[in-house]
Amino acid sequence: MSAERNVEALMNFSTWMAGIQKRTEAALEAALPSPDIAPARLHEAMRYAVLGGGKRVRPLLCHAAGAIFGADSSALDAPAVAVELIHAYSLVHDDLPCMDDDVLRRGKPTCHVEFDEATALLVGDALQTQAFQALTNHLAGIAPARQLDMLHLLATASGSRGMAGGQAIDLAAVGQPLTIGELEFMHIRKTGALIRAAVLLGAHCGEAMPDALEHLGRFANRVGLLFQVVDDILDAEATTATLGKTAGKDAADNKPTYVNILGAREAKTMSSKLRQDAHDALEPFGASALRLHELADFIVERTF
Amino acid sequence: MSAERNVEALMNFSTWMAGIQKRTEAALEAALPSPDIAPARLHEAMRYAVLGGGKRVRPLLCHAAGAIFGADSSALDAPAVAVELIHAYSLVHDDLPCMDDDVLRRGKPTCHVEFDEATALLVGDALQTQAFQALTNHLAGIAPARQLDMLHLLATASGSRGMAGGQAIDLAAVGQPLTIGELEFMHIRKTGALIRAAVLLGAHCGEAMPDALEHLGRFANRVGLLFQVVDDILDAEATTATLGKTAGKDAADNKPTYVNILGAREAKTMSSKLRQDAHDALEPFGASALRLHELADFIVERTF
Repeated sequence: MSAERNVEALMNFSTWMAGIQKRTEAALEAALPSPDIAPARLHEAMRYAVLGGGKRVRPLLCHAAGAIFGADSSALDAPAVAVELIHAYSLVHDDLPCMDDDVLRRGKPTCHVEFDEATALLVGDALQTQAFQALTNHLAGIAPARQLDMLHLLATASGSRGMAGGQAIDLAAVGQPLTIGELEFMHIRKTGALIRAAVLLGAHCGEAMPDALEHLGRFANRVGLLFQVVDDILDAEATTATLGKTAGKDAADNKPTYVNILGAREAKTMSSKLRQDAHDALEPFGASALRLHELADFIVERTF
Repeated sequence: MSAERNVEALMNFSTWMAGIQKRTEAALEAALPSPDIAPARLHEAMRYAVLGGGKRVRPLLCHAAGAIFGADSSALDAPAVAVELIHAYSLVHDDLPCMDDDVLRRGKPTCHVEFDEATALLVGDALQTQAFQALTNHLAGIAPARQLDMLHLLATASGSRGMAGGQAIDLAAVGQPLTIGELEFMHIRKTGALIRAAVLLGAHCGEAMPDALEHLGRFANRVGLLFQVVDDILDAEATTATLGKTAGKDAADNKPTYVNILGAREAKTMSSKLRQDAHDALEPFGASALRLHELADFIVERTF
């Protein structure tokens, strides 16, 4: 274990988390074009949509997974930035009037409200491009062939068979009675695919072997669903002020959620089960997976 | 010169063009998810937006540039598909009500008219992802490090400092008097960047040296502007039936064009000058650049 990792292991979770959030913010800031560069308004809007908010759950998962395999923190910044930019682009487009038509995100007006619809459309488009660009720069210690695999993984997770596909299924599901299986099918794509990519991209930055990737994949699948179940519970129970986005929106939009299909109590039982499964999937990694264990707990215990 | 290239050199331009268009159609068809895969409606809409139409100018440029350096046609399919998918995504988003609000494209209803706005938004998003994905598969005969450079080039051309940035400048320019310099600044990004990427990605599939890339870059910059000047002339003079998209739209939308800034006669003089510059830039390549010469002429002489 390197000196860096020894120091990291001694930190408590919230100190570690704050450190990763801070370095991710700096890496995002560096990846985004300066608002001094033309087109200035687009660059300003891109920065508005990405910087200064968000829990950075995906970058945290990426760094935590990479740490298991001794990946260098600076190599991990690139995939962490890439997944967070994909996430940010999806939020900007998801909030547009033709999609969820939401006005509040991370406690601020959504991008199309603060700027305008056409700008928000281009912001999402350009953030997606920027995400892929972030993974095309030379990454120290990672072979180009492995980096291509990482780009392939990111694309598969983001596209029509991943996140964007999940959003399409979500759209089609409004007002439809879904089975729990259909709801899961949707969320594995809409939220799960990118969370899984965050974990696996982190692992790819180290020397993760196929069987380790398989265990991590199982962990990530559980955490992806866990994240969504908890989101649905929060949406049903929390206030707009705590969430920083409009609470009760899913019910108002007549969207299928774990809470309205299973009921609140059953949804909470499901989240406990997923949390346990996630911890179990990490067993082969012993103490090196400490941060991933803590993140699974954090995802359940968060209030926003 | 390989046997394949000898045969190609003997073909006339329209036979060569039809061959590249056909193989590009097949490669696009293979790159796009089948409509049998969920989400079926999204996949159907992606295919609607991409297949069965378009001149495939960017794939043609990509193949023609690659041929100069003996690049293998099957290696060229991947970047040809990637640039065409980026182009297709930009058209789908550009046609949306919050952008150009157009109802006709390639003689068919635009994607949001045929499907719906939310689907068209996701189609554009997923096509962009698919473009990057097309360049992440292993390409025979191309080193992974070079392939990463190609992905970087594609991202730079497509993002906020390239095509998406050009669209943002275009939006901001509606109803504004622009100088010819400002108009050029916009078009170098909006149309020129991806045309340049098509040419350079083709060259990267062969063993193009830095000085050759520089000459090709100059050619591509001229051709990119040429394409736009001709587009503006066609928009002002052609009919909707010939164009397959709404004619006279730029003037109706109060958009700055070469025709309304320079007048029709001066715009035509400019296109002759650009065409000559494009041919001149190809001089170092001799007869091997035949198809690029022919494409520059085709771009001027097209009527749609």
